[in-house]
Amino acid sequence: MSIPLKHFKKGTPKPELPDDGVLRFYSMRFCPYSERAALVLAAKKIPHHKVYIDLNEKPEWYTDYSPLGKVPAVQLTAVAGQPALVESLVIAEYLDEAYPERKLLPTDALQKALDKILIERLAPAVSAVYPVFFTNNPPVDALQKFEAALDVFEEEIKKRGTPYFAGQQIGLVDYMLWPWFERFPALKITLADKYELDKTRYAKLLQWRDLVAQDEAVKAVALDPRVHAKFMFARHEGKPNYDVAFEPV
Amino acid sequence: MSIPLKHFKKGTPKPELPDDGVLRFYSMRFCPYSERAALVLAAKKIPHHKVYIDLNEKPEWYTDYSPLGKVPAVQLTAVAGQPALVESLVIAEYLDEAYPERKLLPTDALQKALDKILIERLAPAVSAVYPVFFTNNPPVDALQKFEAALDVFEEEIKKRGTPYFAGQQIGLVDYMLWPWFERFPALKITLADKYELDKTRYAKLLQWRDLVAQDEAVKAVALDPRVHAKFMFARHEGKPNYDVAFEPV
Repeated sequence: MSIPLKHFKKGTPKPELPDDGVLRFYSMRFCPYSERAALVLAAKKIPHHKVYIDLNEKPEWYTDYSPLGKVPAVQLTAVAGQPALVESLVIAEYLDEAYPERKLLPTDALQKALDKILIERLAPAVSAVYPVFFTNNPPVDALQKFEAALDVFEEEIKKRGTPYFAGQQIGLVDYMLWPWFERFPALKITLADKYELDKTRYAKLLQWRDLVAQDEAVKAVALDPRVHAKFMFARHEGKPNYDVAFEPV
Repeated sequence: MSIPLKHFKKGTPKPELPDDGVLRFYSMRFCPYSERAALVLAAKKIPHHKVYIDLNEKPEWYTDYSPLGKVPAVQLTAVAGQPALVESLVIAEYLDEAYPERKLLPTDALQKALDKILIERLAPAVSAVYPVFFTNNPPVDALQKFEAALDVFEEEIKKRGTPYFAGQQIGLVDYMLWPWFERFPALKITLADKYELDKTRYAKLLQWRDLVAQDEAVKAVALDPRVHAKFMFARHEGKPNYDVAFEPV
């Protein structure tokens, strides 16, 4: 009863999963929000079954798990009613509380609040870079806005004065930010001028990125920038093929 | 050193506040997200100074507290560096953890996650009703979409089978949803056909609303539908006067 390594589409039957009480993780392999949940699952070594969803042609049965059809979703098969959780931060925090062995969120209420606010502050960078990733004609000021939004993070890592945003060890805040930093190097491939983040302007942030890239959970989950670039090119053409994630680079 | 009861505008000097370690709460009196924080402050009886911000002409000094100029913000003057917290849910959760006397969030990780997901599910109702509240020409299907989005809450309160979403007692989830339910009755005044939520379709939800309206914190914070309607009419004209909140009905 192994689950096929593909994104399930409209018209494909529900995968048959063992009735083993193991958590079920619904995601899309290129979705950065899904990756947040995948990183927490990997970092905490939580056993789970992976089911990938084609977001372009969602299978009819997917709304049984995620009423709005969104990924990620995590279904708790060992709990009465087998509820499914959605929203990447809600899932991450739930997993961190329900599997307390290696705590990723700070226990201090204030630090936890400051980390969540920092995670929210990525939103302007995400909005600015999204059309650069996925369209042929991003607004002319998109990269400028993106860089201005990243200045906040360069400042913050300097202010915190620790190798990770979370402190001396990697933590939830680092994992929640990582997926976008994993994708930025793909711009060196997709943009004509081989775009890279400025090594002086983002000196500390790039050190952080190199360090996080070495984390075991990140290594287990991350995709190569060339694979991200391949997906971005396909999106430029309006023909996303999610399964390129599973092809060799 | 009492703070004037008005919304501070561009050009007005920073209010002088006592250096007493008391939390400072920055908000706009009609902002539903600000009201979420106000409800938690009231429910937990947390002492605080109130500073109201004119969102149309923000005072220059406001970004010192909320870098993006957003309300609500809560400044922790008793903490080193006097950090300011933003984002209504982050503030609410922080206050609930930092002032644990009367816990408003469930302690169970799963129930907490489910409550947060329910709070997120109000978003489609908020988006649909926003132009109905604040413009003269909402899309023709706006009320229909709004009602469809509220069906989720009628179903959920039935499913939970308790008077409050939080259970037998009012809790964080109820306070986070309340501000919009406080505003819906204003539509009876602002819309030509004296719009009200259908008493059959939303029977349980309206029972919940009547019950929450009797809560002490809600009574301390809520504004009369006529005051909300006055503000909505002013917004229709493009001339919001936030200080109508402080005038007699």
